[in-house]
Amino acid sequence: MAVPRYLTGDAAGIKEFLDKFDVFLFDCDGVLWSGDHLFPGTVETLELLRSNGKQVVFVTNNSTKSRADYKKKLEVLGIPATTEEIFSSSYSASIYISRILPLPPTKRKVFVLGESGIEKELRSENVPFIGGTDPSYRREIRPEDYKLIAAGDESLLDPEVGVVLVGLDFHLNYLKLALAYHYIRRGAVFLATNIDSTLPNSGTLFPGAGSVSAPLISMLGGKEPVSLGKPNQAMMDAIEGKFHFNRERACMVGDRANTDIRFGIEGKLGGTLGVLTGVSSKEEFLEGEVRPMVYLDKLSDLLGGQ
Amino acid sequence: MAVPRYLTGDAAGIKEFLDKFDVFLFDCDGVLWSGDHLFPGTVETLELLRSNGKQVVFVTNNSTKSRADYKKKLEVLGIPATTEEIFSSSYSASIYISRILPLPPTKRKVFVLGESGIEKELRSENVPFIGGTDPSYRREIRPEDYKLIAAGDESLLDPEVGVVLVGLDFHLNYLKLALAYHYIRRGAVFLATNIDSTLPNSGTLFPGAGSVSAPLISMLGGKEPVSLGKPNQAMMDAIEGKFHFNRERACMVGDRANTDIRFGIEGKLGGTLGVLTGVSSKEEFLEGEVRPMVYLDKLSDLLGGQ
Repeated sequence: MAVPRYLTGDAAGIKEFLDKFDVFLFDCDGVLWSGDHLFPGTVETLELLRSNGKQVVFVTNNSTKSRADYKKKLEVLGIPATTEEIFSSSYSASIYISRILPLPPTKRKVFVLGESGIEKELRSENVPFIGGTDPSYRREIRPEDYKLIAAGDESLLDPEVGVVLVGLDFHLNYLKLALAYHYIRRGAVFLATNIDSTLPNSGTLFPGAGSVSAPLISMLGGKEPVSLGKPNQAMMDAIEGKFHFNRERACMVGDRANTDIRFGIEGKLGGTLGVLTGVSSKEEFLEGEVRPMVYLDKLSDLLGGQ
Repeated sequence: MAVPRYLTGDAAGIKEFLDKFDVFLFDCDGVLWSGDHLFPGTVETLELLRSNGKQVVFVTNNSTKSRADYKKKLEVLGIPATTEEIFSSSYSASIYISRILPLPPTKRKVFVLGESGIEKELRSENVPFIGGTDPSYRREIRPEDYKLIAAGDESLLDPEVGVVLVGLDFHLNYLKLALAYHYIRRGAVFLATNIDSTLPNSGTLFPGAGSVSAPLISMLGGKEPVSLGKPNQAMMDAIEGKFHFNRERACMVGDRANTDIRFGIEGKLGGTLGVLTGVSSKEEFLEGEVRPMVYLDKLSDLLGGQ
């Protein structure tokens, strides 16, 4: 396998690399910011790319926000963006459910383990759902629930549910896991917005959407969900459907080898750029199974190519 | 591998089998009862064994109850028992932490993901702990928690914690998972009372202790906890330490091939008996990698050997 080229401080190398591409797909958490902390130079780097005529696209596996929420977050941080430039795993999952997944007419409802971002995207695609942020699911399991769930009682198990969609749920609890498990056992399709086990925040890691799927995978004897986030190419197809770009003239920028960089490689993009401000280490980029074409200490090192 | 012998309805076979053993170790959930439903004939079967001079021992991976709680449950169901006859995974874990695990004097505190059963057993062994049923952990994660956890702030991360003990926690939440993960990253030993992915109740399955470990294993890149419940032989050693029985004259009775039956086989017991009233199916007993010596439709079929 090729050794990724280190471009920090290499002005000529950076210029040569940037000239190869018209489109840059950016992972966000761990690349542009960590949690609520914007990395210095992020705004200037994006401005540099735009001023050189590059198309910028934000591609995030964070399922807790809708595209509209993400646009707000970008604006608060001083990054101008349009909703069209944003692709989130909750959007990708909603598109998949509404337009691609074959479901019988009586089984079109989605049981959501996740936050409002998923709900907003499902609503925008007119997909009916239950669960999610509904406060009636934020309670302890009661002794009578076991019998009701075992009996398939409709007060707890909606017979119209044909999909369980798992994203990052800050309100994960025992009852929701029990219901999701029983829906899947009863035949619901097991989908995930993404399967990142961790979520970067404040310079360290917290439980990610993959940590919400993990108990279900364990209970189901190893059955994995279909994940609609990176590196799943359903996300890339949605982006190409919108922008009709030449994949050879596009570069994926990310901090995670096994999701971001893999997403770019499997999507046959012309380039991949790894940054060391998130999950993957230098060793992982240099010696791992999935390696970026080039890497930087941090995104704003691209400013050194001017 | 030998094909397990089916003893239901085989009076001579049952008598011959029972005569081989002086001690019967019983798994409880899925064998004696399911949830709060006592299987018919359980009391009579245990009385038959006792009246024939057999030692009866209850061995459970259910970590939510202490031995004293279990004794009460048995009594309510009409099964006479002493605390000494009961071995729970929370007891096994407490013994392991207090007597076997080498911990520096400044790192003797346990962060518990679990219910009161674990707390009672830790208290009985004078092991200091935090977490567990403490209501201050039953809350949402707050924006400031991310920074405090990232900084290792002592208001959230007790520097004396040297062990994370994971059992079945009906009050699992995002904050507890985040804290457990960070304790382990900071060097705490990762223990589990047991790793059963599911818990039988009301004739079906619900999330088990393994579903609480699963997100942590996923976040830790596959690192597994040391599990002190069946089939870990720490539990068998504790039982033998109490009863000093001849393992060749002992039989393990259970519904799960990969925990109960494995526990008996790896403990070099003289026999293993599978019942079909719990998790494992007839196919699993007959064709799986771990097979009991004999099996029955239900425990009370032993009454047919009189």
